[in-house]
Amino acid sequence: MIEHKSYILNENVAPVIQLTFYSSSTMSTPIKLSSRADCESFLEKFDTLLLDCDGVLWHEDTVLPGIKEALSLLRQKGKRLIFVTNNSTKSRAAYFAKFKRLNIDANESEIFGSSYVSAYYLKNILNFPKDKKVYVIGESGITEELHLAGIRFCGSSDDDDYEFNFNKIDFDPEVGAVVCGFDTHLNYKKLAKAFRYLNTNPDCIFLLTNGDTTYPANGTIYPGTGSLVAPLIKALNRDPDYVMGKPNKPMLDCIIKKFHLDAERTCMIGDRLDTDIQFGINGKFKTLLVLTGVSKEQEILVENAPIIPDYYLTSLGDLAELCE
Amino acid sequence: MIEHKSYILNENVAPVIQLTFYSSSTMSTPIKLSSRADCESFLEKFDTLLLDCDGVLWHEDTVLPGIKEALSLLRQKGKRLIFVTNNSTKSRAAYFAKFKRLNIDANESEIFGSSYVSAYYLKNILNFPKDKKVYVIGESGITEELHLAGIRFCGSSDDDDYEFNFNKIDFDPEVGAVVCGFDTHLNYKKLAKAFRYLNTNPDCIFLLTNGDTTYPANGTIYPGTGSLVAPLIKALNRDPDYVMGKPNKPMLDCIIKKFHLDAERTCMIGDRLDTDIQFGINGKFKTLLVLTGVSKEQEILVENAPIIPDYYLTSLGDLAELCE
Repeated sequence: MIEHKSYILNENVAPVIQLTFYSSSTMSTPIKLSSRADCESFLEKFDTLLLDCDGVLWHEDTVLPGIKEALSLLRQKGKRLIFVTNNSTKSRAAYFAKFKRLNIDANESEIFGSSYVSAYYLKNILNFPKDKKVYVIGESGITEELHLAGIRFCGSSDDDDYEFNFNKIDFDPEVGAVVCGFDTHLNYKKLAKAFRYLNTNPDCIFLLTNGDTTYPANGTIYPGTGSLVAPLIKALNRDPDYVMGKPNKPMLDCIIKKFHLDAERTCMIGDRLDTDIQFGINGKFKTLLVLTGVSKEQEILVENAPIIPDYYLTSLGDLAELCE
Repeated sequence: MIEHKSYILNENVAPVIQLTFYSSSTMSTPIKLSSRADCESFLEKFDTLLLDCDGVLWHEDTVLPGIKEALSLLRQKGKRLIFVTNNSTKSRAAYFAKFKRLNIDANESEIFGSSYVSAYYLKNILNFPKDKKVYVIGESGITEELHLAGIRFCGSSDDDDYEFNFNKIDFDPEVGAVVCGFDTHLNYKKLAKAFRYLNTNPDCIFLLTNGDTTYPANGTIYPGTGSLVAPLIKALNRDPDYVMGKPNKPMLDCIIKKFHLDAERTCMIGDRLDTDIQFGINGKFKTLLVLTGVSKEQEILVENAPIIPDYYLTSLGDLAELCE
């Protein structure tokens, strides 16, 4: 296994946490699951399957073909399922409601979103002090999880209004961390406040829910969390202290801690090489790429592809069909 | 003179225009103007003085001590004055009104703001087609100058509202350029629209009024234009095609073209080494740093200082006093 250092988000500033990214476990061609025998052999190898959601289970509000049958098959075979998503806009409860609405069988405890991980990490890993508050750029997913974790916060929808006057910015002296996630109500006021909290207090924690530079919506892409936070990184000349989401370590630590996973019997299933598959490789899990989302077959079959999954499959929905 | 290539804004993506930045004309210690003889010798050398505004003439709405007397002295001695500012929030007319309000003698034709230069550059250098529109992230300074140049536009205050829904974004098929300047009503909607225009059309011009990463306000700093545009650069993985403001070439080209300056008889006066003084060096002008703004004396006196002015002065206001 080749090990090499890599940086996150901004190559020009040394991050507080240097991540160790691992390259693919073998540099050989990935195995395409295309027959009943392939699928059965694959399923025998694993007890736990980590599944990305958007691009694997659904596209926004549309469940992909065969997904219900595939998940049902996996549960019948006694596999433990954990849903791992970088999208910070929903709390675990709100994700659970989405699973129910889409008629996909799931349990709230199986859902790991970057908003939940952010609150968990602040509380359990960083021991965020009770007399401090978090300033939030982000939506209700983050504030709901902070609330459940007993962490006080300000910002978020309280600063959605677009009125802005440099003379009338109210700063809260109790703020000890800035948490940034995806926010369709991002505005200059939020950026200005977050900048001031971080710029005037070098001890103020700068935590990002996930580093995805684009956000899938309406069948296309728009700027994502990793891009929305770029004004702060640029103006502060400072990288976030912690980035939670795939492929980074905090989400991995959180999942491993909670589920005591046996890496050799775990497979990460996702549609993105740079987040999902890299996350699986970092966790020393096996990996399965599905072609229903961002990454394409040609990206893993070219010579010297930087990230290669162990397995790939046209669609997760094919699993049930192939095993019929 | 040592010549070296440098990049703007984002070192990770090759810019469309590679700028040639020049190092200081001599690497010797800058001359401090501290006596009547120093000042008279300095003034004899120049016909034209380019002056930055904020940090040189005023701080926001407060005129610095001695400025009116200093400018009056310069005019008495027959010097041509040109006011050069990176702030895009005001048109030339609005800047002229500010000079009048602060009781500083000036002529509208002497004022060069980055919003004026953006409109001038689009019209006269890029020959922006009449059947296309500019999508504006920025304030009235930009839209007023575009209007005066006869260039059609959309965005700006029309998209100030913070309501946002991915299903209800209206795109204008006539947009052929995105111009970004400072905007205290920046919001996700504007970023999403600008991103889509640029991402779906590689021929769409991406023009930035100025690259300053911070904006001075209320006695402190906040994120500036060069930071506000970072989400687009990050999500697109594309640098702006053109950056107008100091120290970049477009503003220089525009001033030289309009005033037919004799570089040897021109001095750039400013408070920032990386914008004002670098701009003067790039134009092969002489340079004078004043210490009433961002850059400090120690920055130019340390060994191997990267940017050194030819002259420096505690305050431009001292000029009249020293010459009394």
